[in-house]
Amino acid sequence: MKKYLENINKAFESRARLGIMSVLMVEDRVDFNTLKETLQLTDGNLASHLRALEDAEYLRVEKQFVGRKPQTTYQATEAGREAFKNHLDALEQLILSNRQNE
Amino acid sequence: MKKYLENINKAFESRARLGIMSVLMVEDRVDFNTLKETLQLTDGNLASHLRALEDAEYLRVEKQFVGRKPQTTYQATEAGREAFKNHLDALEQLILSNRQNE
Repeated sequence: MKKYLENINKAFESRARLGIMSVLMVEDRVDFNTLKETLQLTDGNLASHLRALEDAEYLRVEKQFVGRKPQTTYQATEAGREAFKNHLDALEQLILSNRQNE
Repeated sequence: MKKYLENINKAFESRARLGIMSVLMVEDRVDFNTLKETLQLTDGNLASHLRALEDAEYLRVEKQFVGRKPQTTYQATEAGREAFKNHLDALEQLILSNRQNE
């Protein structure tokens, strides 16, 4: 297989996960509703992608109380940032390789 | 949702489909075994991704005989080439937008 394809990370394949990670690369901590509105996903869909990224240890979930209200925030881990950068590099290689052949 | 995310095409999300389309952008007609070896996919996995791309009318399947042997080849359609280029452009926007924020 071509090298750049090997480096494409299945954990980030879907548009939803590309979107989630793109948001978390910029914002330190993001809550569920902000992600939901930014990415226009349903609750169930967003939750399942967040869980997959948490299982891969690419993001960290924090539950806390703001006054009496529970608030859940999401934050990219160092491993998540690193892995996402590598994924973007692999996508860039794919794009470059396709453009060379045009 | 951010514009570049909207333009990411779900039909090309998986690594396998990125690989298939990358090959078909360069080679005019490719047979099953060449794709299988190039992308290192199982028969079932490759067949199911090819079927999805055929259903989307992004590739065309041709069955013919070479001597007495049946041969199946795959070819990107004009719509497939156009859609794949748009997908790569959207990925490029995603990458650029992430790099700006580093």
